[in-house]
This record gives sequence, structure tokens and C-alpha cells, in this order.
Amino acid sequence: MKELLCEFGIVLGICFVLTAILGRLIIPILRAKKVGQHILEIGPRWHHSKEGTPTMGGICFILAILLTLLGVTVLYAVRGEQAELIPLALTMGLGVMNGLVGFVDDFCKLMKKKNEGLKAYQKSSLQVIVALLYIYLLSVLGYIDTSLHIPFTDISVELGVVYYIFALFVIVGMVNSVNLTDGIDGLASSVTLVVFVFFAFVGINSLNTSVTLISAVLIGAMLGFLIYNLNPARVFMGDTGSLFLGGVVTGTAFLIREPMLILIIGGVYAMESLSVILQVGSFKLRQKRIFKMAPIHHHFEKCGWKENKIVIVFSTITALLCVLAWFGL
Amino acid sequence: MKELLCEFGIVLGICFVLTAILGRLIIPILRAKKVGQHILEIGPRWHHSKEGTPTMGGICFILAILLTLLGVTVLYAVRGEQAELIPLALTMGLGVMNGLVGFVDDFCKLMKKKNEGLKAYQKSSLQVIVALLYIYLLSVLGYIDTSLHIPFTDISVELGVVYYIFALFVIVGMVNSVNLTDGIDGLASSVTLVVFVFFAFVGINSLNTSVTLISAVLIGAMLGFLIYNLNPARVFMGDTGSLFLGGVVTGTAFLIREPMLILIIGGVYAMESLSVILQVGSFKLRQKRIFKMAPIHHHFEKCGWKENKIVIVFSTITALLCVLAWFGL
Repeated sequence: MKELLCEFGIVLGICFVLTAILGRLIIPILRAKKVGQHILEIGPRWHHSKEGTPTMGGICFILAILLTLLGVTVLYAVRGEQAELIPLALTMGLGVMNGLVGFVDDFCKLMKKKNEGLKAYQKSSLQVIVALLYIYLLSVLGYIDTSLHIPFTDISVELGVVYYIFALFVIVGMVNSVNLTDGIDGLASSVTLVVFVFFAFVGINSLNTSVTLISAVLIGAMLGFLIYNLNPARVFMGDTGSLFLGGVVTGTAFLIREPMLILIIGGVYAMESLSVILQVGSFKLRQKRIFKMAPIHHHFEKCGWKENKIVIVFSTITALLCVLAWFGL
Repeated sequence: MKELLCEFGIVLGICFVLTAILGRLIIPILRAKKVGQHILEIGPRWHHSKEGTPTMGGICFILAILLTLLGVTVLYAVRGEQAELIPLALTMGLGVMNGLVGFVDDFCKLMKKKNEGLKAYQKSSLQVIVALLYIYLLSVLGYIDTSLHIPFTDISVELGVVYYIFALFVIVGMVNSVNLTDGIDGLASSVTLVVFVFFAFVGINSLNTSVTLISAVLIGAMLGFLIYNLNPARVFMGDTGSLFLGGVVTGTAFLIREPMLILIIGGVYAMESLSVILQVGSFKLRQKRIFKMAPIHHHFEKCGWKENKIVIVFSTITALLCVLAWFGL
């Protein structure tokens, strides 16, 4: 356990420093190339001051993570232990593929100079394809177990082929939820930071190398990125970043074989999605809004909460949900 | 372990909410009474914009912590388990007594309308008295073990009466170091947050009720206070807050019987003190400065780092030092 903890600390530190350095190098380039996000007119009006802040900053931490993991993989290969990293590679694969979808989306927005990238159905189709590819690889390599553990019980339900459909919904749903969470300076990065602190606990406690290393790079990356992403943000992660994070978070939940638990650990992400569904549903059915604005973080913003307050409250809720989730393992 | 973790989560949540509410209520009062800190002229000049930000904000989280612990104590008394909380009471005692010294200091500053409170020798004398009282109580109640564990080894050295002198130096030194760390928006609160996440690990892992509960209230309190203390800060904790935190941090290190390990866990605090000592020493001996300004956080500020960057970098260093410290237990 102590050896794993040692690797955890070193990998975290390296990825943190790399993210900070890459941020320093890449953000000025993004700014110079005017990779700024046009702020939706229907957003809170004070968000107009964010006009011109470069987006696609997710590139900084994605590169830092991949570089760090390259080093780790070489080290493991030298020791002849590379097989331990297959689950890690699969999870990062889900993240990177989703990040690519996000990159295409960001790039389209940039070209059209509107806050619209891919059409909803285009984005969803790509996400479904990515998820199916991931599930396929998982099952081919024998990392899928079609029995589903019900959190807080010792019961596992054998779902058979239904498991694949369930997995598809969880993956696409969670990835989009993380994407929705990224609407306030530092929110998605902070919540994801807390989620991976929890996964680090789980990984170290169960001596799972892949989970521990993924947590280490993600914690390092989120901390490094927060330097530039905290209010007032000097860069946004963009869909590139948030879809990547969504993929890695969901993939890690599958890695610890707890895909249902992600609804608790990632309760804040789920709440963001739910608030949009409720808002749209309520408006269609009753012509009334439930929240001042959806996703829910904008509701609190309209209630007068400062961005940092929302970040801290949502992160703390995530931390408490993680304590709760520990019982459900 | 799961029961303890459950208490941990609930206590953390309650203390967080209480701190946030008390902050909302007390900060406007502090502002109205003009409990503003006059900014030292020798500080970085951009700190002049902080003129008028109320200080003594530590009162918010100290009250929240004491209220939460009052509830916890009643619960334990009802269950007839109040004896488990004696170490907790001793540790909070060290914190509160130091907080009182800080309060007197803040109050004097306020009266004199200068950034000078108690004279250095007055403050130090009070701190020594407080530390001696704590050590006395600890030894009377049988919580002192004069053998000192050397971190990273299995060796314990029996110090006998020398232990008391050692303890006195550690307490007064660390309390002042935490005090020095409180010079940038959110710095002392964030670093202390990370330190107590580590203590929570230790407490839960060793099933130590007192350590777990102290960590829970401190984590909740720091998160709640960060809502108002992050850059741009709407309130400072003042000496009231930072001396309280110093007392609790040091007390908790004694509680886990690792007073030497605090130099690693609290490496950032130690570094802050060390930078002042080196700076003053170098200037007296060689008439040259080592840092652009001491304590060291001001050095980085003069290097052009934003306050939030310093907060994140120092917190990450603390997190890595905590991973290291785990090996030294």
C-alpha cells in the first residue's frame, strides 16, 4: 500500500506541474488566436464580461495527463507490469474519445463565431458511437461483468444483455451531465477534483493500480487547471475539457464496477442534468419554470450567489455524497 | 468504521452550513463596526485595495465549530460515551485559548487604528502561558507520553522531562507559523483544510473518535469560511482565526502522538516561519535579502503570481507533504 501511495504522490505532483506549465504556454496562444467563447444571450447578463476569455483550455490538462501517463506506462513496461495498466488505458480512451467530440464541437463554434457548435443530434450520435466502442472494447478484453451491484446492499443483479443498454445510458448521460456542470468558473474542475479524491481513496484502499493512477493524474490536473480556471477565469475548459472529464469519471466508475454509484458520487452532475429536464418538462407541461434558470448553477447565480460560493457549496455537497457513497460500495 | 464515517459526514455538513450562515450574519456587523484591518505600508502596494475589508472573521468559524461540538457532546453524553471526547476537548481548548490571545491582539489593533496590536513580547508571553496550561492539562489527564516517535522509523526516544520543553517549542512555533501563513486571501484556510483532510484519514483509519470529529468540524468550517475568504476576500480571519487554527492543528498532532510529523504535514506553515527567520538573519549578517519579501507568500506575489495561484500551489504542496507524512506515521 505504501508503494502505491508513493507512486500516487509523485504522479499527482508531476501532472500538477505539467498542467501549470502547459497552461502558462497554451493559454496565451488560445488568447492570441481568439479562441474566445461567445456568451449566449440568454445567459445571466453579467456573463457578458466573460466575452473574450479563451475556451478549449481542456487541451492543457489533457496533454499533461497523457504526457504523465506516457511516462508511467514506460516505467511499468520496463518493470514488465504493463498489463496492470490495460484498464487505465481503456478509461483514458473513453475520456480522450469524448474529448475529441468536444474538440470538434468547440472548433465548430469557433468557426461559426456563435455559441453553437455541432447540432444536438450530431453530438449525441458521436457520443453514442464512442460509448459503444468503449463498451465493445471492455467486453472484448473481458473487463465487463454483466451483473450489476446495487449500492448499499450485497445484492448483485445479473442483467445479461440488458447491462449493455444500461451502460450506454449511464455513459452518455453522465458525460453530458459533466458537460452541463461546466457553466461557472472552476465548477466542473472543483467537483471533479473532489470526485477523484474519492476514487483515490477507493483505489488505494483496494490496491487497484489503474484507479489510483487515474485519480493521481486527474487530481494533479484539476489542481493545476484551477490556477487559471478559478473566478475570474483566464481560460475555460470548453467541451474539449468537460466531455473528456465526463468520459474519465464514468469510465472510472465502471473500473471499480460501481456504475450505479456514480449517480451518488456524481450527484452534482446528475442534479445539473435533472434541473434541465425538470425545467424543460415543466415549461412544456405547465408553461411555468421551476428554476429561475437551468442548469441549476445559474439558478443560484440569479439568486445572487457569487461564483466561488457556488463552487464551494457544490464541491462540499460532492464531498458529503462521497462519504455517503463509501457505504454503498 | 462505517459508523464513524457517517458521523464524520454529518458533522462536517452541519459545521459547513453553520459557518456559512454565521458568516452571512456576522460579516455585515464587522463591516458596519469598521473592524477593518489597516494594511501595513511595507506590504505589497496592491494590498492597499484590501483596506476596509473586515478582519476577526475567525469568530464565524470558531462559533460554528463550538456550536457543532456542543451538539456532538450532548449526543455522546446521552450515549454515556462522553469520556471519548476528552482529547477533543483538550485540543479545542488549546485552539480557543490561542484564539483568545488573537482576539485581544485584533482588538488592540482596532483600538489603536494601526496594524499593531499587542507587542511581540506580550503576545509571545501569552502564547507560552497558554501552551504551558495545555501541556499541564495533558499531563494531569494522562494524555502525555514522553517518548517521542521519530517519523519514518520505528524508533521512539524516551525524552523524559525534555519532552515538555520540546512540546512547548513545537506549540508556540507552529501556532505562530499558522499565524504568518495568513497573509493572502484564502491561504491559511485552504492549507488548513488540506491538513485536516489528512488528519481525517488518520482518524478514520485508526478509529480515533476525537481526531475524526475534530477533522470533520475543521473541514466543514474551512469550506464554509472559504466562501467569504477566497480572493477577493470579503473578510479576513484575523489573529483570532489564525491563532485558533494554529492551536487546533498543533493539538491534533499531539493527539495522534506525532508532534514531529507536524513539521512535514504543516511544511507550508514551517516554510513561512523559516522564510522570515532566513530573511531577517541574512539581512542582519550580510545586509542582503534572500526573498523579495518575507513571509514567502509575499515573495511569490512580488514575482507576479496571483493570490489564487499561490493558494492552489501551497495547498497542493501540503497535499503532497501529507502523502509523504503517511509513510512517517
